[in-house]
Amino acid sequence: MKLQGIFPPLATPFQYDGSLYRAKMFHNVEKWNKTALPGYVVCGSAGESVMLTTEEKLDVWSWVAQAAGTGKLLIAGTGVESVRETVWLTNKAAEMGYKAAMARTPHHYKWLLNRDEPQLMYFRAVADQAKIPIIICNSPLTTGVDISPATVAQLSEHPNIIAIRESSADIGKVMELVRTVNKGFHVLTASASTLWPSLQVGAAGAAPAFANAAPYACITIWEAHRTREYEAARDWQDRIALAARLTARYGVPGLKYAMDRNGYYGGPPRLPLTVIGPETKREIADAFAEIRG
Amino acid sequence: MKLQGIFPPLATPFQYDGSLYRAKMFHNVEKWNKTALPGYVVCGSAGESVMLTTEEKLDVWSWVAQAAGTGKLLIAGTGVESVRETVWLTNKAAEMGYKAAMARTPHHYKWLLNRDEPQLMYFRAVADQAKIPIIICNSPLTTGVDISPATVAQLSEHPNIIAIRESSADIGKVMELVRTVNKGFHVLTASASTLWPSLQVGAAGAAPAFANAAPYACITIWEAHRTREYEAARDWQDRIALAARLTARYGVPGLKYAMDRNGYYGGPPRLPLTVIGPETKREIADAFAEIRG
Amino acid sequence: MKLQGIFPPLATPFQYDGSLYRAKMFHNVEKWNKTALPGYVVCGSAGESVMLTTEEKLDVWSWVAQAAGTGKLLIAGTGVESVRETVWLTNKAAEMGYKAAMARTPHHYKWLLNRDEPQLMYFRAVADQAKIPIIICNSPLTTGVDISPATVAQLSEHPNIIAIRESSADIGKVMELVRTVNKGFHVLTASASTLWPSLQVGAAGAAPAFANAAPYACITIWEAHRTREYEAARDWQDRIALAARLTARYGVPGLKYAMDRNGYYGGPPRLPLTVIGPETKREIADAFAEIRG
Amino acid sequence: MKLQGIFPPLATPFQYDGSLYRAKMFHNVEKWNKTALPGYVVCGSAGESVMLTTEEKLDVWSWVAQAAGTGKLLIAGTGVESVRETVWLTNKAAEMGYKAAMARTPHHYKWLLNRDEPQLMYFRAVADQAKIPIIICNSPLTTGVDISPATVAQLSEHPNIIAIRESSADIGKVMELVRTVNKGFHVLTASASTLWPSLQVGAAGAAPAFANAAPYACITIWEAHRTREYEAARDWQDRIALAARLTARYGVPGLKYAMDRNGYYGGPPRLPLTVIGPETKREIADAFAEIRG
Repeated sequence: MKLQGIFPPLATPFQYDGSLYRAKMFHNVEKWNKTALPGYVVCGSAGESVMLTTEEKLDVWSWVAQAAGTGKLLIAGTGVESVRETVWLTNKAAEMGYKAAMARTPHHYKWLLNRDEPQLMYFRAVADQAKIPIIICNSPLTTGVDISPATVAQLSEHPNIIAIRESSADIGKVMELVRTVNKGFHVLTASASTLWPSLQVGAAGAAPAFANAAPYACITIWEAHRTREYEAARDWQDRIALAARLTARYGVPGLKYAMDRNGYYGGPPRLPLTVIGPETKREIADAFAEIRG
Repeated sequence: MKLQGIFPPLATPFQYDGSLYRAKMFHNVEKWNKTALPGYVVCGSAGESVMLTTEEKLDVWSWVAQAAGTGKLLIAGTGVESVRETVWLTNKAAEMGYKAAMARTPHHYKWLLNRDEPQLMYFRAVADQAKIPIIICNSPLTTGVDISPATVAQLSEHPNIIAIRESSADIGKVMELVRTVNKGFHVLTASASTLWPSLQVGAAGAAPAFANAAPYACITIWEAHRTREYEAARDWQDRIALAARLTARYGVPGLKYAMDRNGYYGGPPRLPLTVIGPETKREIADAFAEIRG
Repeated sequence: MKLQGIFPPLATPFQYDGSLYRAKMFHNVEKWNKTALPGYVVCGSAGESVMLTTEEKLDVWSWVAQAAGTGKLLIAGTGVESVRETVWLTNKAAEMGYKAAMARTPHHYKWLLNRDEPQLMYFRAVADQAKIPIIICNSPLTTGVDISPATVAQLSEHPNIIAIRESSADIGKVMELVRTVNKGFHVLTASASTLWPSLQVGAAGAAPAFANAAPYACITIWEAHRTREYEAARDWQDRIALAARLTARYGVPGLKYAMDRNGYYGGPPRLPLTVIGPETKREIADAFAEIRG
Repeated sequence: MKLQGIFPPLATPFQYDGSLYRAKMFHNVEKWNKTALPGYVVCGSAGESVMLTTEEKLDVWSWVAQAAGTGKLLIAGTGVESVRETVWLTNKAAEMGYKAAMARTPHHYKWLLNRDEPQLMYFRAVADQAKIPIIICNSPLTTGVDISPATVAQLSEHPNIIAIRESSADIGKVMELVRTVNKGFHVLTASASTLWPSLQVGAAGAAPAFANAAPYACITIWEAHRTREYEAARDWQDRIALAARLTARYGVPGLKYAMDRNGYYGGPPRLPLTVIGPETKREIADAFAEIRG
């Protein structure tokens, strides 16, 4: 399986009463289908997976599976704290046609889990029982836990662990991952702000939340990199700098507003996340003025 | 509702295949029923709530409700990230006879949620819709998020928010909470290591994981404090110092081993947590040598 | 040597042009001489030691040595990063009549020094060469480094290391220190906000910056504790709660303003620290309204 | 003033009794003179400036000024906590022929100083009074304080503040700095591990401690970047990856051992830093096997 290019971790649309918004999920996916995005991550952190019940995750996976265009690679965000439930969710997604599952590092008991042994154990145990390949998701900002390149390198030898989505913008870490993982194991970045430098140092692609609202800009940087047009890549990276930074700063609520502006349905996040205020809206609108959806 | 004394956050028993162990839940509760513990917290962090599916939480709540002795106050750990699901769980627990619900601070999107506005909003929204009173659970070590005394003071004015379980061992914070919250709002500590000093500065009680394995020691400190036998209280606090510290350090796996030694069923935690090794067992056994269950 | 009671780490007075203000150092010390303070710490963190040149430290030590009343125990803040210079400064202070030296944990190369080996080595090497006893100063908030109770317990066996000034408000740590250090080794707290609880769990005394501005309140708590008037101790602790907290929050600039209000010379801190603004002044004035100097 | 290329922050040589080693300082500088290094930073963090007395700093500055080859740009590390002493040191260095001074962010009172206002004030106050231009040094790992790109952008407008040495390996931050600072203001990285990516995104050069031991490798990456030989640059970056990482991990003691191996005098660091053990030596020796001095 080749994980090359931009895989947005899809935002999950809600109605203003807080319930899932099926029609808008279809609307958004159909619009993304028209782009060169090679696939989608469904129910990751940007998809507010922590706000969803199990039933709701199954619904969202099913809807995206129906709506996704031919050839779009489907990746399910299935990581929860226990090995047991992560495996169950992963295999449910597999039944629905998902080709890979992304699982974040377990982290509730940080002082016990922020170490190589439990991380190795967790991902191996999940991968052993999963019917589809596993992608490690490392997101220190949300989990408070980090997985080291050395641990990832060990996990990269497992035949059913195929990639990492590294959420930090640490290029030195991306370089070390690229340098030390098994051949065939892919390194993806989650950071739109360092998309081009990550590709330059060997990342195979990216899964940035920002791509929900700005797929073309991300694809353009990817293409410029692929065709070795360094000036263009750097120029585009500069153009999205502010928009990418604000999307990271304001999180899902900011992202959803940017989606609303760019022809997708963003809508409200689930409480306790709230719609951003007018000043933040203006800030985001300005940053996205030249970036189309 | 008076929250005075020691309320252990019950460990959840699992079989060695990872499934819930109903019989042992009853065994443990029946043993705790014989103590002067005034009540139980069911499915909190020490109960591995993050490892349980929704169905499993309902099962555990139901079992403890059946097993609990007359007059034991039942508190359900119902906090998850979304307001919506926390309310649903809380009201399910209410139907089963739970008299209060404990909800931890939401924290996945830390950089957005580690502030007073979303914290105020979350707890008010939950409390408004909950059929039983809400206890705030602050546990920076697991959540990576902290709630300030000023925010708690504001929340203490809500008629359906009745207490905080403060997990940090910060006595200055306990003092400030006691000094600033609304009359009738209770401050509980979760820290066995600072149980006596917390009571001294005005905490109404405690909900320490340690009390699963060592209820009598905790009750003794509480009683010594209540009857103003300061020397005895300090002496007992010293006696449990090492055991309390190790229980905190080794988390649920260490706690479960201490329970096994003290006549309760501890058993294995759920993966990726794992049974502690022989050296840690020895360390815990030594620390608990003089502390009975 | 008995380290019992309140030892303020003296603020260093500057003129508005930034130079040392000799006359005001005498003025302040003469005023403190009239209290029951058993001694002074000179050129510690609250004395802006990091802002002073070596010559200036020697001047300040000499002035306080001249001004201090009979029987006041003189402690010099002599800790800098290198063993070599700390020893030199310590022995200079010894020549001037200082009876002990306080040295903070070295910390510039945090990732190398935040461990037991270099901490053991540093304090042993300093103590071996020092002509007066050494007091360990642990101040994670300024150093970014912590020293563990186990390391302190080992250091407490050194005949020339006699105490620790623990700056955190962590009562559990104070208890563990008290429980594990060598007999005769003293534990002092630096936290005015937890003065009484610290004494309750066995601290021998305190060295809080707050005592510069509010020596009587600190002495009152100490005396109430010593004579087992627990209600009075707790009551006084509550009375200073806000003032102590604000002094900690606003640091040396806030402390100096409180001193100005209470009959001492506070004056300006050295740049880049700056005089506090009018709103903060009002906040501090309110908090100190009932607390005399 | 053009700050392009590699400016090593020189290690300070000590004898085994801890005193400065003048002859070895000359030996090292004469060897570096033969390389294409455009200049030197003298008495920065890698030069153990925090271990040096004021007199010793003046000595080292004077020796390097004498030993440096024609055309080598001399930069003095002059930052200490107070504006006053930083200015004094800076102007002393200016008298000795130093062309610029590097000052780290003040940080002792972290909770007061880790903000834009005191950072703006400090650097402006220093720059206003300094006879030579100022280079901001941002080193969160040692200071526990960070300076934001927005603050640096404001400082870049001061005519006497000419550059920043950013010690983090955060390429996103380097990009943002490059994008937002005043024209003519230079961004240098301190991170050998991300040297090439930093140059790619617009850094003008680098001041990595690693260059003490491996000047040629650093210069080669710089040259490959300058001549747009991207494959070569990336290849060299990969070759130094492990050595650069170990140098960062083991700090000055590790760096000095690598220098010893590569024909420079490294010698011992000052206590409490200590010579590295045999295993670490082997690790470093292996990593540097193919990297000449």
